Amino acid sequence: MNAAKAVVPFKTRGAKTRLAPFLSPEERMAFSKAMLRDVLRGLKGIDVTILATEDFDPECDWAHVELNRRDLNTAINAYIRHVREPTLIVMSDIPLIQEWHVREMYSEGVTLVPGRGGGTNAIFMRDPSRFKVDFYEVSFLKHVAIAKQRGLPLKILDSFYMSTDIDKPEDLAEVLVHCPGDSCAYLRSIGVRLSYGKSRIAVERG
Amino acid sequence: MNAAKAVVPFKTRGAKTRLAPFLSPEERMAFSKAMLRDVLRGLKGIDVTILATEDFDPECDWAHVELNRRDLNTAINAYIRHVREPTLIVMSDIPLIQEWHVREMYSEGVTLVPGRGGGTNAIFMRDPSRFKVDFYEVSFLKHVAIAKQRGLPLKILDSFYMSTDIDKPEDLAEVLVHCPGDSCAYLRSIGVRLSYGKSRIAVERG
Repeated sequence: MNAAKAVVPFKTRGAKTRLAPFLSPEERMAFSKAMLRDVLRGLKGIDVTILATEDFDPECDWAHVELNRRDLNTAINAYIRHVREPTLIVMSDIPLIQEWHVREMYSEGVTLVPGRGGGTNAIFMRDPSRFKVDFYEVSFLKHVAIAKQRGLPLKILDSFYMSTDIDKPEDLAEVLVHCPGDSCAYLRSIGVRLSYGKSRIAVERG
Repeated sequence: MNAAKAVVPFKTRGAKTRLAPFLSPEERMAFSKAMLRDVLRGLKGIDVTILATEDFDPECDWAHVELNRRDLNTAINAYIRHVREPTLIVMSDIPLIQEWHVREMYSEGVTLVPGRGGGTNAIFMRDPSRFKVDFYEVSFLKHVAIAKQRGLPLKILDSFYMSTDIDKPEDLAEVLVHCPGDSCAYLRSIGVRLSYGKSRIAVERG
């Protein structure tokens, strides 16, 4: 594994509110932690810093929690400013990530992994001190522009699994169809299952 | 290029009705044809059969139209039953596809390209006569099962660009963010542009 460090931002309160009609606050928290475990499994062997809004036990040998109450961009930019080791930033809500994705992210400059809706779901930086993150809105295009402005070689990792961030009830279907991990097991344990329409699937509880 | 043939199903009437609140029937047809041109460009150098509900000029040297009024599964299964050459099936609404995706689809058995919502956006078959398609509902899992039942080596091509089929107004944002082709140019020509919310983008016309 070529990346030495990874940063995973994690919200411990008020997370995943768009799943609210479908999951209770306690279920949303338990599901968020299941997704985090799947992400951490993808990052096995890397020194992971979880930037979290409050302390908790990630139950993972290669991850530790660092408290953060600032917004995402401020927190990550403060973290990477003085880091010169190859570093990954990975969102905590992409449970379909696998170890081979992480190997494919390694590059000579910056690797961006697009999320749906113009987002960026993960970033690899060969020299983080030369990059700056700018999440929210169409962050993918902003990150492309930042890499170009700074003359950093740019790689785009084209991955359906990594593009799939889980925000809305319909996204849960992706977990049930594709996920081999804890997130899928958790959803099944609380009775979430696929339901079928004419051409699109959804989820239901029963 | 290793695939000798490709089949692209194309609806010439009543296509893309879920874009109805956003695009007029004429615009939906023009946009569908722009997406088809982008897909055909990805399939350059391959002998492409467009299975269409009525005749039209695809304006593409390597593609010809074959009339079909049966449902998708019946039509494709009738087509592939006696074909033993390596063959691709590619949906016409995935304009982010590039030539390198097509090269990556080649395999010793069957390659499936997952679409969002449990769909299958493209299939490569080394020997089509040994496979059977079953689109609609969670077709991805059905195609995995069919390949396994028939003892065909299975490859899954994990691609965000190919997973992105354009059905709903919000999908148009993916075209505007990522597409270098005719689909993007067409949307811009009729005034469709990105709009920004707090964390998600949408599209608007102006």
